[in-house]
Amino acid sequence: MIVVMRKNSKEQDVERVRERIEDMGLKAHISKGSERTVIGVVGNLDRDKLSLDPVAILSTDKSVDRVYPVTKPYKLASRENREKDTIVKVKDVVVGGGNFTIIAGPCSVENRQQMIETATGIKKCSAKMLRGGAFKPRTSPYTFQGLGEEGLKLLKEASKLTDMPIVTEVMNPKDLDVVLKYADVLQIGARNIQNFSLLKLVGQTDKAVLLKRGMSTTIQEFLMSAEYVMSEGNGDVILCERGIRTFETATRSTLDISAVPVLKKETHLPVLIDPSHAAGKRDYVPALSKAAVAAGADGLLIEVHYKPEIAVSDAAQQLNIKEYCELVKELKKIAEAVGKSID
Amino acid sequence: MIVVMRKNSKEQDVERVRERIEDMGLKAHISKGSERTVIGVVGNLDRDKLSLDPVAILSTDKSVDRVYPVTKPYKLASRENREKDTIVKVKDVVVGGGNFTIIAGPCSVENRQQMIETATGIKKCSAKMLRGGAFKPRTSPYTFQGLGEEGLKLLKEASKLTDMPIVTEVMNPKDLDVVLKYADVLQIGARNIQNFSLLKLVGQTDKAVLLKRGMSTTIQEFLMSAEYVMSEGNGDVILCERGIRTFETATRSTLDISAVPVLKKETHLPVLIDPSHAAGKRDYVPALSKAAVAAGADGLLIEVHYKPEIAVSDAAQQLNIKEYCELVKELKKIAEAVGKSID
Amino acid sequence: MIVVMRKNSKEQDVERVRERIEDMGLKAHISKGSERTVIGVVGNLDRDKLSLDPVAILSTDKSVDRVYPVTKPYKLASRENREKDTIVKVKDVVVGGGNFTIIAGPCSVENRQQMIETATGIKKCSAKMLRGGAFKPRTSPYTFQGLGEEGLKLLKEASKLTDMPIVTEVMNPKDLDVVLKYADVLQIGARNIQNFSLLKLVGQTDKAVLLKRGMSTTIQEFLMSAEYVMSEGNGDVILCERGIRTFETATRSTLDISAVPVLKKETHLPVLIDPSHAAGKRDYVPALSKAAVAAGADGLLIEVHYKPEIAVSDAAQQLNIKEYCELVKELKKIAEAVGKSID
Amino acid sequence: MIVVMRKNSKEQDVERVRERIEDMGLKAHISKGSERTVIGVVGNLDRDKLSLDPVAILSTDKSVDRVYPVTKPYKLASRENREKDTIVKVKDVVVGGGNFTIIAGPCSVENRQQMIETATGIKKCSAKMLRGGAFKPRTSPYTFQGLGEEGLKLLKEASKLTDMPIVTEVMNPKDLDVVLKYADVLQIGARNIQNFSLLKLVGQTDKAVLLKRGMSTTIQEFLMSAEYVMSEGNGDVILCERGIRTFETATRSTLDISAVPVLKKETHLPVLIDPSHAAGKRDYVPALSKAAVAAGADGLLIEVHYKPEIAVSDAAQQLNIKEYCELVKELKKIAEAVGKSID
Repeated sequence: MIVVMRKNSKEQDVERVRERIEDMGLKAHISKGSERTVIGVVGNLDRDKLSLDPVAILSTDKSVDRVYPVTKPYKLASRENREKDTIVKVKDVVVGGGNFTIIAGPCSVENRQQMIETATGIKKCSAKMLRGGAFKPRTSPYTFQGLGEEGLKLLKEASKLTDMPIVTEVMNPKDLDVVLKYADVLQIGARNIQNFSLLKLVGQTDKAVLLKRGMSTTIQEFLMSAEYVMSEGNGDVILCERGIRTFETATRSTLDISAVPVLKKETHLPVLIDPSHAAGKRDYVPALSKAAVAAGADGLLIEVHYKPEIAVSDAAQQLNIKEYCELVKELKKIAEAVGKSID
Repeated sequence: MIVVMRKNSKEQDVERVRERIEDMGLKAHISKGSERTVIGVVGNLDRDKLSLDPVAILSTDKSVDRVYPVTKPYKLASRENREKDTIVKVKDVVVGGGNFTIIAGPCSVENRQQMIETATGIKKCSAKMLRGGAFKPRTSPYTFQGLGEEGLKLLKEASKLTDMPIVTEVMNPKDLDVVLKYADVLQIGARNIQNFSLLKLVGQTDKAVLLKRGMSTTIQEFLMSAEYVMSEGNGDVILCERGIRTFETATRSTLDISAVPVLKKETHLPVLIDPSHAAGKRDYVPALSKAAVAAGADGLLIEVHYKPEIAVSDAAQQLNIKEYCELVKELKKIAEAVGKSID
Repeated sequence: MIVVMRKNSKEQDVERVRERIEDMGLKAHISKGSERTVIGVVGNLDRDKLSLDPVAILSTDKSVDRVYPVTKPYKLASRENREKDTIVKVKDVVVGGGNFTIIAGPCSVENRQQMIETATGIKKCSAKMLRGGAFKPRTSPYTFQGLGEEGLKLLKEASKLTDMPIVTEVMNPKDLDVVLKYADVLQIGARNIQNFSLLKLVGQTDKAVLLKRGMSTTIQEFLMSAEYVMSEGNGDVILCERGIRTFETATRSTLDISAVPVLKKETHLPVLIDPSHAAGKRDYVPALSKAAVAAGADGLLIEVHYKPEIAVSDAAQQLNIKEYCELVKELKKIAEAVGKSID
Repeated sequence: MIVVMRKNSKEQDVERVRERIEDMGLKAHISKGSERTVIGVVGNLDRDKLSLDPVAILSTDKSVDRVYPVTKPYKLASRENREKDTIVKVKDVVVGGGNFTIIAGPCSVENRQQMIETATGIKKCSAKMLRGGAFKPRTSPYTFQGLGEEGLKLLKEASKLTDMPIVTEVMNPKDLDVVLKYADVLQIGARNIQNFSLLKLVGQTDKAVLLKRGMSTTIQEFLMSAEYVMSEGNGDVILCERGIRTFETATRSTLDISAVPVLKKETHLPVLIDPSHAAGKRDYVPALSKAAVAAGADGLLIEVHYKPEIAVSDAAQQLNIKEYCELVKELKKIAEAVGKSID
């Protein structure tokens, strides 16, 4: 931690801050520049003070201008702590480590025909896992809220038929048990990315967890949410960038494509892109999917529906099966160009 | 709903959209301008199509440029549906309807001394309810997570001593029962504002609910979250603006002071301001608190700690009791200037 | 400047960075923590290297994780360099130093009647300076672009009649001479706040300069723009917060009311609020104006038009004279409550 | 234009709005829904009212809830008005129409050796035009401001030697004449994208214009800035996305990769990506460049310096020649995969 004092701080101001530092059991290295005094802080908190937040505490002093942290708050998720890429295995499917894995399926599970037709359709075009929501986080209480366990059963049927593992969202701790009966990968939605109670719970399961970045979550906070899951003992975490909220309204969200190289540098966890929620409009999904492959993502989480024009949710952004299959053809060429393969 | 066609749409494009509209049981009024055709859509969805989202569905047509909604998605929360201000009563305390109500207390409940000293201190300076977190949503799994029920008991003791109702956060559905035993107002934190499972649950209780706007929640989405609570039968909802996330880093969040007049126009629910989380720095809390009174807010949710310099969370932004009491003196004058009173 | 090395940096990495630092004539203080090495950098650049940017250069090293600046980039504008509030005098009008100064008038100068009626109307209600645009920055090339010098003449006539100095925008260096003939305060619009050529030019005049913060300008960048003007020798700079661009669309921009206390801490320059552009809707202007007084601003820049319903620009956000006068009555009470007066 | 009335509007409210509409020479089509009245507005403004803004004017009515525009504000730039891609020719270089054109060079022109070595280096690796700033928009008045005409001469020398046209920024109308003597493409920087005076001036020249999107410019505003240039008679406009300002700080800006498909749909003008300013860090430039090719951009504007570690500006984000040449090799493969070629 580095404490930068205000410009006109006096000897006694510096002393007061030093005492505050030492009171917590830490050490202060004072360095007086021509303009400002800077204090380096090292050491570990006294045992009875472990709950304190030294950065915030030192910020309260009236002569302190800024406090910069030196260490990063994420440990288990950090590339500095584990250089090698994490590869998450879900049954026979592999995410990370040079593969490009496509997870496809409808926004919501709606009915048997929809699931069977969609699953068999995407299976023919390189999809490796099946997505679909049975518990749906909807902005309005008056819109379709998902089929619940009924939906999970339909997912399971389609999954068995096509031999693709299931990725589905859990929203509520009390639903976790039922979701665990059907899901192969537990998805945490963007709106729950800082629902820490839920993160801890899925961290206690033995299922892989797919975390979707929140609309206003920084990359550092996103990694802290991964840290919540990992600190409970579950290292099978897959990250998914799905667009952040900005002033631009031409797309539903702004896909932060830079999150791919930034996350690849900061963490060893695999990184997917969700082009559907980012775009919000079917027309833009292909370009974003191609950008994802080229930028180095480990896969896609993409919405495909056998008949988007009658979908009960996200109708505007789902590809139909023909559009999806055509897109995959193009993605294969780009994957090859960047040394990956989609099969 | 209004459908604006693309500029060069042909007769058959318009017909196709008209059929799609009529298929859902709705009526289409077509109006051809010199440049574009615009279709007004009225009526109600067929019974078996209630789960459809017509705005999204019509957006999927390749000749449709934009679709504008006409009705607002919130009903119960809307000022258009209820002109009169909602007044939320919590024991003897009143929120809304011309009062300016101060809810104060520490960020986290830490120990008995802290709670007693803080509560008795603020009680003398016009605080009407006591806030304090026993279950804490923390970005890092390695920092203080709250005292849990132990904290609720300390809150209760301080509350009884000072005769102030308790406002405290519930994060996890499974904690709801224990929180209900102690809390007078259930707080939903900014990170859970779109945790719809939790919103429904608190909507089924008979306690007042204080909703904190999320960091990237639009005002419309914020009102939809209120609608979730209200649609379960609980109309005692208090809204609280606490800063939104923007590019500016000089403050922790950017207080959206305009949310006060906008919410006052759109809804009948009371609106508080949380100057502490918005500012993130104690120095800026007084100015934001004064702005809140002047802008027409119904009260403050403000962090006060008897010794901020040893607080285990949010140390940088909590006022001490002296600072708080001085601030209240100034707020009283402004309240009077705008025709309200703080007593 | 403080250089934080990556976690697994080796001896030779640190040495390479040290050499790079010393090559620029600076000194390196190396401090090895248990986890990371931190290098403090002090001293001044060698004479022949003054054009280098050491923060950026050190960031290029592959073993450097982050580089934190210690000094602030603004000097003349900084409160640390000048504790006392700057008071800008424009003829008999004073901005800053405990006064609350209202600058009012229409968005655009449109015609003689409009200017005379508006100016005489606001003069009766505490307006101290007259605003109005003769050169208008419009998003569309097809909308009204301002009357040019003809507009300046109308402004002058209204100004003489009411004895109020003129605040008007200059957009183009080539218009500066003609604007200087009429204006008392040169306004730099939000879209030109980083038009550095223009900033330098107005810095060479002897007129006061009113700088409007840009829609995506940080407070630090805003102060750097003030620094551009001041570094040319013109210290009569007035800052004006007018809303920043965020994801929220209920208002035209999001008024950053916190900018008032932040700027008051960081700089000695006076700070105004423009509630009209922030709100974009007349209904919200009173609440934002009141918040401005309460938060400690030094005045308002507010749009008033004798007949907003026929205004050629910004019709939706201009108050009429009656609304404005009623607002001023309320502002006076709040000003008094915070120890200021509006007369 | 479509006017949505407030829910409880009365007959006389609707009549008042109708009169207002007809007063401007427009026609009102009133349609009463079960909940709200909607008024469609068609026709052209009366001749003496051409300067009015009907959307804003109708918004001022107290019974009007919202006003939606139907037509788009950009005409010449719109894909609806010209289906075929615009191809901009600069000497022998072609931008748009299926080509992928790389414009490379240093941030600032610094000296002869830098320009010659950089230009000859990039020429070998598919660069088609040479970029470099002689007039530099710098946040601080105390940093390097560019060599001015001296820099333009060095650019010219390097350009002749390598037979690459010059892309360079003009910041100030008064510099236009000197820049025109040397430049082949006039660049308008992000900070000047709404400097309408400058846009009009470059629209009057016969040089191609490269417009960089501003940090907080919406895509619609960006197209309006193109419209400014085109409405003066210059149709050779090249658009360049370079990152927008968001809350994320891991990168200098957030590259809005979705801008590529959105702009391709909305306009016929060519679209480049600047990965250097978006990333702000050299490490992330390759991933963003690859994403640009895959997403369908028409080229890159990329910063390359023969020795980034001594660059006077943007040192952290410039590639060296070796890095650049390696990147181009990879870009060629992706270009081929998407049916384009880089030669």
